[in-house]
Amino acid sequence: MKLLSFERQGLASWGLLAEDGRIIDGQPLTQGRYRSLRAALQAQALPDIARAARGRAADVSLEDVQLLPVIPDPGKILCVGLNYEDHRRETNREPTGEPTLFLRVATSQVGHGLAIRCPAESHKLDYEGEIAVVIGKGGRRISQEDAYAHIAGYAPYNDASVRDWQQHTSQWTPGKNFDATGAFGPWMATRDEVPDGADLSLSTRLNGEVVQHATTAQLIFSIPRLIQYISRFATLEPGDVIVTGTPGGVGFKRNPPLFMKDGDIVEVEVGSVGCLSNRVLAG
Amino acid sequence: MKLLSFERQGLASWGLLAEDGRIIDGQPLTQGRYRSLRAALQAQALPDIARAARGRAADVSLEDVQLLPVIPDPGKILCVGLNYEDHRRETNREPTGEPTLFLRVATSQVGHGLAIRCPAESHKLDYEGEIAVVIGKGGRRISQEDAYAHIAGYAPYNDASVRDWQQHTSQWTPGKNFDATGAFGPWMATRDEVPDGADLSLSTRLNGEVVQHATTAQLIFSIPRLIQYISRFATLEPGDVIVTGTPGGVGFKRNPPLFMKDGDIVEVEVGSVGCLSNRVLAG
Repeated sequence: MKLLSFERQGLASWGLLAEDGRIIDGQPLTQGRYRSLRAALQAQALPDIARAARGRAADVSLEDVQLLPVIPDPGKILCVGLNYEDHRRETNREPTGEPTLFLRVATSQVGHGLAIRCPAESHKLDYEGEIAVVIGKGGRRISQEDAYAHIAGYAPYNDASVRDWQQHTSQWTPGKNFDATGAFGPWMATRDEVPDGADLSLSTRLNGEVVQHATTAQLIFSIPRLIQYISRFATLEPGDVIVTGTPGGVGFKRNPPLFMKDGDIVEVEVGSVGCLSNRVLAG
Repeated sequence: MKLLSFERQGLASWGLLAEDGRIIDGQPLTQGRYRSLRAALQAQALPDIARAARGRAADVSLEDVQLLPVIPDPGKILCVGLNYEDHRRETNREPTGEPTLFLRVATSQVGHGLAIRCPAESHKLDYEGEIAVVIGKGGRRISQEDAYAHIAGYAPYNDASVRDWQQHTSQWTPGKNFDATGAFGPWMATRDEVPDGADLSLSTRLNGEVVQHATTAQLIFSIPRLIQYISRFATLEPGDVIVTGTPGGVGFKRNPPLFMKDGDIVEVEVGSVGCLSNRVLAG
């Protein structure tokens, strides 16, 4: 299944893609039982939702809705830094024995098709194409062996970063949390569509040109290793998001540097999962 | 007003302290209009709540409830590092031109009277007494002059930190986000009880001994300056929490180091606001 969140006529809902590429609205589908995709995940309702959707006609076209971040209101958004060797090297960072983690807040997120904002405060807005993992089953101290069973699905993520604000101090928080910089969508592909351990490809394109490319086989800390590490300190909950890191090729380490500007189109494509596209808007 | 969140017979609610020190339950008080303190803040309902509570009898004693974190589900918890000169010096960090910020997730919080957990993963659990600011009115790009008008109130916070996990990499996230380490309570005092710019005192006691003491006059980045800086990158929303930093005297910089262990009692007292007390529990 491809699961998504959307807004239509000012009302937020969630749903899934029908075979014809249109949307089945999740609220009528489940008799209003789940007001959000996060609530459906908390209720472990994906098998019931798949059953209910079988053969059901779609309710609305993608063109008639505004997609929201796949999970608009995650309990936590854990992002991994320096998790591809070529990116670690281009940023001159030492290898670490554990993953480098920072957090995003929900107000920093934006859906597919909406604008990533290039704030008046900076002209150093950079792309970071990544693969997001959405947690389906919560837990603490999860082993690597059990990790995949805790995943609901996968989605493209653009961890767009304001580089000068990221470097104000030792902690990256401000540069990673500008409003409308964390693009998340268009949808998540559920885990049954991506065999456990499969090699997912990841490409970032700026105005049609490929600027980053890698596969999950190149991750320094694998997805099971990330789930194991994070769940040693924090209880993971359904709807939590782990953004697994960006490959080499980011703009601020190019010569000359390549930053995003008003009018640019930035895309993040993840294997068979989908392609996230956003334009960049100043202000 | 002193506002708080609590759980009673398995049900979460919120309320305020009556003159007799007992609790007026906020849900019946507002005819069930606000299910949480965050929802009441979002609705800008504090003046109505104060009016409704006048002369009303309390519903329940403090002893008959379990207090929750003042805001159990903040949209964001922004913590400030190195914001007192003596703490910056004891940690050998260079001065910075902007505040050092990191984030906590809601699952890391715990209420007054509950246990701060000393995890099996470490024996380096340290106290950090702080003053939390709760946002009442949202906004972006708030000036220092307007900042106080965005504050709903103040509360004690213990930003308990697992030092070895804080130092796994350059980013402090894991050591600041262990389950049940961010103690927040017992309540918040609304802004009308603390004159804008008043000098609030802050003391941390471990097993009765004062281990940290400061006043907000010693903050490197003042509360208005923090609100200005944060709101330049992120929209602040009602219920968001800013934890303003800890003074010198933390345990891991003492000789010999002083860490918290099973059975300890740790208290954070903020001026006339209140005193947060938690015992430490291993596991």
